[in-house]
Amino acid sequence: MICENLSVSSDGILLFGGANTVDMIKKYGSPLYLMDERRLRHNCRVYVDSMKKYFGDDALPLYASKANSFKQIYRIVASEGMGTDVVSSGELYTAKSAGFPLEKAYFHSNNKTDADIEYAIDCGIGYFVADNEEEICAIDHFAVKKGITQKILIRLTPGIDPHTYEAVATGKVDSKFGSAIVTGEAERVTKIALSKKNIELCGFHCHVGSQVFDSDVYLAAAEIMLSFVADMKKNYGFETKQLNLGGGYGVRYTEKDPVIDIAENIKLVAETLKKLCEKLDIDLPAIRMEPGRSIVADAGLTLYTAGSVKRIPEYKNYVSVDGGMPDNPRYALYQSSYTVLLANKMNEKSDFLCSVVGRCCESGDILQENVYLPSSVTRGDIVAVLTTGAYNYSMASNYNRIPRLPTIMVNGNEDYVAVRRESFEDITRNDM
Amino acid sequence: MICENLSVSSDGILLFGGANTVDMIKKYGSPLYLMDERRLRHNCRVYVDSMKKYFGDDALPLYASKANSFKQIYRIVASEGMGTDVVSSGELYTAKSAGFPLEKAYFHSNNKTDADIEYAIDCGIGYFVADNEEEICAIDHFAVKKGITQKILIRLTPGIDPHTYEAVATGKVDSKFGSAIVTGEAERVTKIALSKKNIELCGFHCHVGSQVFDSDVYLAAAEIMLSFVADMKKNYGFETKQLNLGGGYGVRYTEKDPVIDIAENIKLVAETLKKLCEKLDIDLPAIRMEPGRSIVADAGLTLYTAGSVKRIPEYKNYVSVDGGMPDNPRYALYQSSYTVLLANKMNEKSDFLCSVVGRCCESGDILQENVYLPSSVTRGDIVAVLTTGAYNYSMASNYNRIPRLPTIMVNGNEDYVAVRRESFEDITRNDM
Repeated sequence: MICENLSVSSDGILLFGGANTVDMIKKYGSPLYLMDERRLRHNCRVYVDSMKKYFGDDALPLYASKANSFKQIYRIVASEGMGTDVVSSGELYTAKSAGFPLEKAYFHSNNKTDADIEYAIDCGIGYFVADNEEEICAIDHFAVKKGITQKILIRLTPGIDPHTYEAVATGKVDSKFGSAIVTGEAERVTKIALSKKNIELCGFHCHVGSQVFDSDVYLAAAEIMLSFVADMKKNYGFETKQLNLGGGYGVRYTEKDPVIDIAENIKLVAETLKKLCEKLDIDLPAIRMEPGRSIVADAGLTLYTAGSVKRIPEYKNYVSVDGGMPDNPRYALYQSSYTVLLANKMNEKSDFLCSVVGRCCESGDILQENVYLPSSVTRGDIVAVLTTGAYNYSMASNYNRIPRLPTIMVNGNEDYVAVRRESFEDITRNDM
Repeated sequence: MICENLSVSSDGILLFGGANTVDMIKKYGSPLYLMDERRLRHNCRVYVDSMKKYFGDDALPLYASKANSFKQIYRIVASEGMGTDVVSSGELYTAKSAGFPLEKAYFHSNNKTDADIEYAIDCGIGYFVADNEEEICAIDHFAVKKGITQKILIRLTPGIDPHTYEAVATGKVDSKFGSAIVTGEAERVTKIALSKKNIELCGFHCHVGSQVFDSDVYLAAAEIMLSFVADMKKNYGFETKQLNLGGGYGVRYTEKDPVIDIAENIKLVAETLKKLCEKLDIDLPAIRMEPGRSIVADAGLTLYTAGSVKRIPEYKNYVSVDGGMPDNPRYALYQSSYTVLLANKMNEKSDFLCSVVGRCCESGDILQENVYLPSSVTRGDIVAVLTTGAYNYSMASNYNRIPRLPTIMVNGNEDYVAVRRESFEDITRNDM
């Protein structure tokens, strides 16, 4: 199986983090998101421990909470000693409500509104990751108004094409994010930040893409970023305290995806960075990374109940489930691959080729094409889609006015509701 | 301009349904959806009047409410004499809460759950549009249990490729929807429906795609459907009372989209259907159509406030707004075209080529590429995206934990809140 927290009971039921998936549906209803708290904590520890071991005690991974944002997840990552990055006042509000230590929170976004900036300062946000000159000026404006000194990083685009899919390719010069090094814009905005009395420039950030399976892209980005750090020291005497390398390593959606040893990769990046710093005659800044997907993705799966099973001879077969693009829009958006299993018939041979589709009135409401399930698949069977802990709940809609799913957390022998199922009252609450 | 409800004030402000867009932002905050009630009612009347005039008094357009579902819209379409189609218990709940006459409601979906069927019967739903044998049996089961006779239509796939984009091409044989005529499945399920004592089969439904700009596809589908109707009469003595032709005509997203005379097209379809019925020696069934997009799309627009304006020389220009794919995922999903205007600078020349992007931490968060706006565009300007009344609010998410926008209805000199803006409390309400 694609993740070690998956197994099968003697009577052919899929177990996730030890929990019986069929029992979970009976107890909490269908469909639902299941999260494995032990796996989630394991994923946090891989980053926390490796980063401290190889980069030093001042290194810190930040949970990129846009991957999956709800109160309990901030409590869990905080208790594992991680920081977090938030990209909106809504994520910040959620982290704050969960008691997250906001001095370890970083506020991202290519476009922070004035309201965002004021709210975040009022909350005591640790750092802004300022995208551009305009934002530095807006942050300075509110810092002056509040009589504080605000710590910031500046987001730079190192000009790396990460060779992952376009939609998450964010480190290129023509990105909507950040200020480019190659055009001179990065140096210009650094000077501006250094000139502001109420701004404390702490360092720089870059993000070269997510779902990365080897460290080459980090190494390439780090080399450009450290050269820039050296230039800023030489030109302005500026000591970079923090260097934030952005997103984490890839996760396995299917058996075809490679297995990656994150600790080994972090070790390699650390060794290379230390050598580069020596060569450039600069101190190694405190390193930040921002794993989101690789913290939560394989700690989650989605359980559905099969409805209509349609066999169209000489054309195609369909298995419809009681969810779809409202709870997982990633196939519709990116044609993302997922592993799909029939959770209550794991001992049967999977030789029935079908499309697993959602219940929405839209042809594009597909969860996965060309899936093999047992040929006995029928109404009432339980369908599991694996590796849905990232960018499912956080991207979920009420399309077709379908209530959003609950998130049920399993933790060894315990299970509990982390996010309640939406009700019809919830989805019409703001209708006048 | 692409719709007659758009105009410009003498001081260069975009007016929508007569309402000053800049004043709307001042009054209700940014960003927001604006809907023009007069345009919405006009669009309803085009269908109601033309269908009754050309098909006869028993014809009825049904508002396909998945396009935009909230209480006030059901009140408006009901007061215009339309029926509605709902695709989930959530849409049905909303229609019911708004007092919609449910005997004129049709329950669609390729995969109705048992809970949906029981709830809809308890609500007194007029019709189910049954997708397949399994659903007919499930509806019969609950009709028997409740001691009622339930009216249904059966959804058929006539095998038409509408040459619109794949994601809305739903009339093909290999569709996830309905039972195919060509494979014999349609006749088989008709016989099953006729054998059920607690089911009253009233007719057939097909849907060949939305955003259709000429009637050829309806005529092709109608010919196949009416031949099937004649066969069912001949083979089983079954008189088809209703024939539902599905989705409505196309709307204009940009100046390139053709202007379509809906009344003239309905007249043409009616004439052709009457001739076909005469030739086939059958009575013309009561006709249903299901316009959704063409009722609400051009009755809506979205207003945003510009934030970061990024000029990357020799690469690209970006205008970021305070919304994006959470309120309008259609560019991310389908690369849909939209017309974008700078609502507060309509008198300036638009010669600044840019991408209008959202505020999400995702490169794919684009509202529109290659837009021309005035070169003076800057933080605080008001950006209008036109024709967003369909499949925007209904598909909206809280991605990046961004609260969903309010819908403000304008009606001549009045304006009022139809859907309130979501609060941070709303988006964390179900977090434990």
